[in-house]
Amino acid sequence: MPVFLNAADPDFEHQFRAFLTTKREVSPDVDAVARDIIDDVRARGDAALAAYSRRFDQIDFSTTPMRVSMQEIEAAAAEVDPAVIEALQLARDRIRSHHQRQMPEDDFYTDPIGVRLGSRWTAIEAVGLYVPGGTASYPSSVLMNAVPAIVAGVERVVMVVPALKGVVNPLVLAAAHLAGVSEIYRIGGAQAVAALAYGTESIEPVSKIVGPGNAYVAAAKRQVFGVVGIDMIAGPSEVLVMADGENDPDWIAADLLAQAEHDANAQSILITDDAQFGQAVADAVERQLKLLRRADTAASSWRDFGAVILVPEISDARSVDLANRIAAEHLEIACEGAEALSGKIRNAGAIFVGRHTPEVIGDYVGGSNHVLPTARSARFSSGLSVLDFVKRTSLLQLGPGQLRMLGPAAIRIAEAEGLDAHGRSVSIRLNLQD
Amino acid sequence: MPVFLNAADPDFEHQFRAFLTTKREVSPDVDAVARDIIDDVRARGDAALAAYSRRFDQIDFSTTPMRVSMQEIEAAAAEVDPAVIEALQLARDRIRSHHQRQMPEDDFYTDPIGVRLGSRWTAIEAVGLYVPGGTASYPSSVLMNAVPAIVAGVERVVMVVPALKGVVNPLVLAAAHLAGVSEIYRIGGAQAVAALAYGTESIEPVSKIVGPGNAYVAAAKRQVFGVVGIDMIAGPSEVLVMADGENDPDWIAADLLAQAEHDANAQSILITDDAQFGQAVADAVERQLKLLRRADTAASSWRDFGAVILVPEISDARSVDLANRIAAEHLEIACEGAEALSGKIRNAGAIFVGRHTPEVIGDYVGGSNHVLPTARSARFSSGLSVLDFVKRTSLLQLGPGQLRMLGPAAIRIAEAEGLDAHGRSVSIRLNLQD
Repeated sequence: MPVFLNAADPDFEHQFRAFLTTKREVSPDVDAVARDIIDDVRARGDAALAAYSRRFDQIDFSTTPMRVSMQEIEAAAAEVDPAVIEALQLARDRIRSHHQRQMPEDDFYTDPIGVRLGSRWTAIEAVGLYVPGGTASYPSSVLMNAVPAIVAGVERVVMVVPALKGVVNPLVLAAAHLAGVSEIYRIGGAQAVAALAYGTESIEPVSKIVGPGNAYVAAAKRQVFGVVGIDMIAGPSEVLVMADGENDPDWIAADLLAQAEHDANAQSILITDDAQFGQAVADAVERQLKLLRRADTAASSWRDFGAVILVPEISDARSVDLANRIAAEHLEIACEGAEALSGKIRNAGAIFVGRHTPEVIGDYVGGSNHVLPTARSARFSSGLSVLDFVKRTSLLQLGPGQLRMLGPAAIRIAEAEGLDAHGRSVSIRLNLQD
Repeated sequence: MPVFLNAADPDFEHQFRAFLTTKREVSPDVDAVARDIIDDVRARGDAALAAYSRRFDQIDFSTTPMRVSMQEIEAAAAEVDPAVIEALQLARDRIRSHHQRQMPEDDFYTDPIGVRLGSRWTAIEAVGLYVPGGTASYPSSVLMNAVPAIVAGVERVVMVVPALKGVVNPLVLAAAHLAGVSEIYRIGGAQAVAALAYGTESIEPVSKIVGPGNAYVAAAKRQVFGVVGIDMIAGPSEVLVMADGENDPDWIAADLLAQAEHDANAQSILITDDAQFGQAVADAVERQLKLLRRADTAASSWRDFGAVILVPEISDARSVDLANRIAAEHLEIACEGAEALSGKIRNAGAIFVGRHTPEVIGDYVGGSNHVLPTARSARFSSGLSVLDFVKRTSLLQLGPGQLRMLGPAAIRIAEAEGLDAHGRSVSIRLNLQD
């Protein structure tokens, strides 16, 4: 049974706090294992990759090449149902159009005293994209990670994907092909992260690594952070649906289950101001659960982490406050005045506005990115975007006149900070040094 | 003696690679200590803070309050030399003007098929600013961290600073006052990071922590990453100067020393196409070293990590390539055609263009930020900016017509990914479900 909370209960604030701080994921401590694997790949390069792949993925790189050939990529793409290819093309095109709007603009200007200042954006030269193996190997995630990198102007996008017995999911290869990624290696785990960060004989290192992975991958990413950039560490996914009583309970139940089927640690939350409707949704969830191939996963997520929160009024300040405190990765707003309500929300990875915008559209074909901040991190971070694949260089240019105007203040602060050489570097140009 | 490299040497590439990968900092492994302190602060709150502050900073919170009072802040500001206050005001105003240009704009639009898409930026609600104690306690860094947060619209900026025997550097309090920060606690180390991330009885938690610190602070920031956001982990500072023979060797020597005096692990590199000039700069460094209060630090940095690299031509493609591979935090370009050369540089935190723009101007009064990516991380990251204090929410809104157009593709991808509930969440709204 999911938890039922009622904002009118005197004990609600206490219960809600406990709910907010419930840990959904116990990360196993695999730091030491990841560290050993990274050290080994740094020391032995390709030989270490071959050993780990033999052990974990049952591949022999002496017979199956580590790099996936162009022929293999094209063959995989040809094998996928053309209707699926067409759907992925639509997704890619919409992701591309939306992300093209995110390219930041350079800004060069001269200030009132004649100092030239500039901010110039350039793409990261090489980026690694980790794609998980097994059931979490999603072609949609390949598009969501690779397309923004390519829109940003990254010249080299390298994909790594663990391949049990050498087999890579053809949908993943097809998506890579559609995105324009052609450098793909059949490696995974901490060893793949190490290879991307430090390079091996066969793999040139990259400057940043993105994409989700298991606990070993996450630990390895944390450890190589600094040598390369990394994206956020993704936690289990969540959806918050704010819905009034005018919705079809079956629609909302389907949305809650779409989140729950991802992972037993996923979380689906309904906030409603209609108690009967809340119960009807919970009943519909139970009915629909039976229809799913992933019923066990979804049932377990809904039972352990699901919640129905009853509020006096769906769009008042208190409901907004609850939503901001939950800071959901995905927020669906299905009520009268959904657009106005969406304007009041401060903390959410993505908002899906109105009764005809199920979150699933954003997973695939909306155009916006589905890599979003989980576990309340929407309070301080954003979904993946073109900005994650560019960096800014600032530029400053003074002439002798500007240096005379600003120099004395710089010298004064340097002296106060006890940094003589800082002061001298300016004073020597103003003929002021002792 | 610094290292002298000559790009004309047959062995240059090998030597340059070794130079690039020289580790300047051995981070002590203090993870376990930091973890224990964090756990203790989570468990005991203020009592733990009191115990650590007594032990490490010799403060007794029963007599010296943990929070710095407004009166104390104002008294400190009044005590500082008015000329220094005026210089800090100039710095603050210029930082503010420059950073106001960085505010990202919301983007709402309707695409050709009628889907509404939006990207909305909001400020992080509460941010913690770590300020180191001792000699690294710089008022300029307070401004560089606090002003962009306040420009971004962060409502609550909380400063923590370790205070030996209760004393906070008055310059730091004066800078906080000028920046508009009034919530200041006399705490430091991993315990201060824990208090900011998790809160205590006296300190409300924040959503992001920025600012430099020692190894314990860095380890604690890595560990609370995810619970809160963090900025990059700052490494030792570096400058690369590209200078032709037309410069005064004393000017360039002063710039190299301004970097070297920061830290024995700091790095100063000169690239020049004039061997005699390179030698003259090295000689000038030795002469000027004697004049510095921090001569020992600067001498040690220059001896251990300093470098003079001789190239055939200062602004040709090969020199640009070397600069991009060094990816310096600070890059000074002091040669003919400096502006054109700056346009070819891809990897640098900040570029100081021309003979009258010493890097020190950027440390204090240029207006751009002095918190910049160190240790080659300019290949994948940017200096601190307003963007570090805001986050983006994406919005998506479909009507029934758009759902009919995009829904079938979403259903198709969901089916291919084996996610039934994803498919149902769309099909149920299109009356397509089984």
